[in-house]
Amino acid sequence: MNGAQSVVGTLLGSGVEVCFANPGTSEMHFVAALEDAAPDGTRMRAVLGLFEGVVTGMADGYGRMAGKPAVTLLHLGPGLANGLANLHNARRAGTPVVNIVGDHATYHVQYDAPLTSDVEGVARPMSDWVHTSTGALAAAADTARAVQAAMQYPRQVATLILPADAAWSPAEGSAPALPFAAPAPVADAAIARVAGLLGNGRGTAILLAGDSLGEQALLTAGRIAAATGARLLCDTFTPRLPRGAGRVPIERIPYFAEQIVGLFAQIDQVVLVGAKAPVAFFAYPDKPSKGLADSTTVSVLAHPHEDGPAALTALAEAVGALRTPVVLAERQVDGSTEGRFDQFGIGRIIAAHLPEGAIVSEEAATSSLGSQIALVTSVPHEVLSLMGGSIGQGLPLATGAAVACPDRKVVCLHGDGGAMYTLQALWTQARERLDVTTVVFANRRYAILDIELGRVGATGNEVAGRMFDLADPELQWVDLARGMGVEGVRVTTLAEFSAAFASAMRSRGPRLIEVMV
Amino acid sequence: MNGAQSVVGTLLGSGVEVCFANPGTSEMHFVAALEDAAPDGTRMRAVLGLFEGVVTGMADGYGRMAGKPAVTLLHLGPGLANGLANLHNARRAGTPVVNIVGDHATYHVQYDAPLTSDVEGVARPMSDWVHTSTGALAAAADTARAVQAAMQYPRQVATLILPADAAWSPAEGSAPALPFAAPAPVADAAIARVAGLLGNGRGTAILLAGDSLGEQALLTAGRIAAATGARLLCDTFTPRLPRGAGRVPIERIPYFAEQIVGLFAQIDQVVLVGAKAPVAFFAYPDKPSKGLADSTTVSVLAHPHEDGPAALTALAEAVGALRTPVVLAERQVDGSTEGRFDQFGIGRIIAAHLPEGAIVSEEAATSSLGSQIALVTSVPHEVLSLMGGSIGQGLPLATGAAVACPDRKVVCLHGDGGAMYTLQALWTQARERLDVTTVVFANRRYAILDIELGRVGATGNEVAGRMFDLADPELQWVDLARGMGVEGVRVTTLAEFSAAFASAMRSRGPRLIEVMV
Repeated sequence: MNGAQSVVGTLLGSGVEVCFANPGTSEMHFVAALEDAAPDGTRMRAVLGLFEGVVTGMADGYGRMAGKPAVTLLHLGPGLANGLANLHNARRAGTPVVNIVGDHATYHVQYDAPLTSDVEGVARPMSDWVHTSTGALAAAADTARAVQAAMQYPRQVATLILPADAAWSPAEGSAPALPFAAPAPVADAAIARVAGLLGNGRGTAILLAGDSLGEQALLTAGRIAAATGARLLCDTFTPRLPRGAGRVPIERIPYFAEQIVGLFAQIDQVVLVGAKAPVAFFAYPDKPSKGLADSTTVSVLAHPHEDGPAALTALAEAVGALRTPVVLAERQVDGSTEGRFDQFGIGRIIAAHLPEGAIVSEEAATSSLGSQIALVTSVPHEVLSLMGGSIGQGLPLATGAAVACPDRKVVCLHGDGGAMYTLQALWTQARERLDVTTVVFANRRYAILDIELGRVGATGNEVAGRMFDLADPELQWVDLARGMGVEGVRVTTLAEFSAAFASAMRSRGPRLIEVMV
Repeated sequence: MNGAQSVVGTLLGSGVEVCFANPGTSEMHFVAALEDAAPDGTRMRAVLGLFEGVVTGMADGYGRMAGKPAVTLLHLGPGLANGLANLHNARRAGTPVVNIVGDHATYHVQYDAPLTSDVEGVARPMSDWVHTSTGALAAAADTARAVQAAMQYPRQVATLILPADAAWSPAEGSAPALPFAAPAPVADAAIARVAGLLGNGRGTAILLAGDSLGEQALLTAGRIAAATGARLLCDTFTPRLPRGAGRVPIERIPYFAEQIVGLFAQIDQVVLVGAKAPVAFFAYPDKPSKGLADSTTVSVLAHPHEDGPAALTALAEAVGALRTPVVLAERQVDGSTEGRFDQFGIGRIIAAHLPEGAIVSEEAATSSLGSQIALVTSVPHEVLSLMGGSIGQGLPLATGAAVACPDRKVVCLHGDGGAMYTLQALWTQARERLDVTTVVFANRRYAILDIELGRVGATGNEVAGRMFDLADPELQWVDLARGMGVEGVRVTTLAEFSAAFASAMRSRGPRLIEVMV
């Protein structure tokens, strides 16, 4: 057994079943070891991505849905660098990810060959945990520690750098899986304090994040809200939000700073459950960065690393809300093809045809509001958003989610600008026969920047206009999809969209619909 | 005038004329300032890339050809991260590049908004110089220093982080351009020492790199070789190599470690001119990392930061070779469409039709040898190779070179696997009407990894085979190109290739030829 085999065996023994990979020469022994079965016969599922940003984005989508890490396989510093943006997003999502990054053999680094770089330095900004194996004898134990680090609550990005000679030299065997620590319990005092606040008559918002947005936790929070009159809020972007009929409706905090301030002007006190106090996404001249008024008080029921769902149950008990009735969303859809061909019409049709249990990966930027509104009353489903703001996540996220949940339909709603960053994900969808329908909103602009230019107080001009313009030449998404083995169709009316989307929902496999909004 | 305007004015004043950009909200003032003209009326040319790896790769291609930096405009830590791999390649090429990376407003960082990251940490591994402007009053001076750093011999990657409030706050004006230090002179003693070695009767190789591969320096080196019997060598990969008829032929060091060792086994002493001693690209079990035998002696004529071309002239004088005749390559081409449809046949046809002064961006990996052999006797042209080993450079490199040299035909020879990393460059080629012909060698494999798997001593198996396989689904490059506004054609015979390539050489504008090797 060599080091790479000991690493793969340790991953399998630690419950890691999927490897998203874009390997190179220094990862060849790891690739060869992917064939090895664990003692119980399980093998790693190896999924190739044609660009590393696809690989790490898939790991994010997989980890969000599976609740445990996939492993990525990346090639040296530059390969890791190509994956950093989506690791940033995964980290902001609280997704467990283990990266295995090959490096030159330990004795080869001194020669400064062309691919030599400071791999730890590349890893650190987007990793919670970084370690370089010193050799084959340590690699298995390091791997078990990396998985443990990824599972540290509320989940982390762990990067293990594996020198080529640590992979090819003899090892002593796989390491046993390490225990994963449970989330920290919330102190009784915090629960009692918040219970007291909920009865003080002030206007209250409960801001939920992370696992506290799970379906059961959300129901408990709904009971607390119903019993106490508090409003339920979540961040603009959430890693995984149950939505649709039978779920507790929750208000999303709006995107723009002045809208956030407007919302919280109505609220006297905020209770955080796994969440942070809201802030503006960007700074703007003469606009506040903080979302809350200075007069708004903030209380923490549960920090992100604590057990928010259990704290909600204890809080419900403390305020007598364990069985309080709660109004759940009801299915109410309108799939008519009358009306304007815009994101609101598109959103209505998506909501009318979405199958139960669907997973919606959403990165539609200025085209997202239509479906957001309509999907609240669609069938029960889950929505995954872009968490770190680095665009180019939606396609790989959908791809990884489809790997994790092969029996659920995945729908990816994406802006055309953002989709160009990691379009290679379509190839993996075709290769793995994944059940993903991608809707590209082709407005042929970085439309958000048209808005932001004015909001930051800069003055538009011809050069700036051209920097936001994707119309010359016009991207042809049907061609791009065909080029990677995915069937696509361009639609220019609601009727065409309805026919294409309904057909995609009835069949399996990757599809793309280019919506000429 | 705001900080962003002072930065753009300083760049123009320092000779920086082109901005390769992929901006976001925090760069809006910089984008707006791109419209401003310098006192002499010059304006920055702004070139949009749809992915940051394209942006930095274009800056590398531009900088290699222009001999001065372009500026890139990148969005926060993740946007910079997406550009790191091609910055690694640029740095290994010794290309001057100035990156301007927007960051959150200084006072906004404390709120840990979703896009917050350690931007300096992201920059450092692939930058020679990193600085964060503390405000608008400092931004212009910092910019002049960044350009000076980029031009520090032998050229560097300089990254200036510009917080949003440093861009939008009032500034006092542009900063004057700073002087660029000349390369250090080579000591007379080094020249005398090497002149002595060249007469000692031992088998000698002169290894040239960087500016010492310029056309005139190469001619001088050729005279020295002719006078002394030394062999002229260059690295496997070179940033910019004059090649073809009328140029001094030079041997490229082969790629694989055992071939390097084989070459240098015939050589007793090596003289380095701007070069480093050769090493293997990767380590392999039981193969040497060093390219030279222990018995081979190494002498430095010029370090990379020293004036290699002047040292060659002085050396030629010292050995009496200033007017020694040298055998130059003669044009000898064979454009016949008889023979096998493989890289060698393709290479012959490329060599037969290449126009004089063409720039060849080469990242064809296992398909590169055919054109390398044939082009030695083509018309005079220059070849730019992948310097840092991080694949996905060739398309953007060609794009940037075409921006720098609008009157020269650019030909990009690329493997299909590598081309998928930064295929978005094709869109910029169409947008800017650049005169680039891309030849994609579609072998539908990571074919180099088939070779490397065996070379590192790993055993192939079904999983590994599938990790190198790009045939399921088959990439359709003509569709991919059309999706980005570039006309493409697939060819399956030498006659078809010859017709397509000859046609592309006669017309202007971007084209793509998919070669089904």
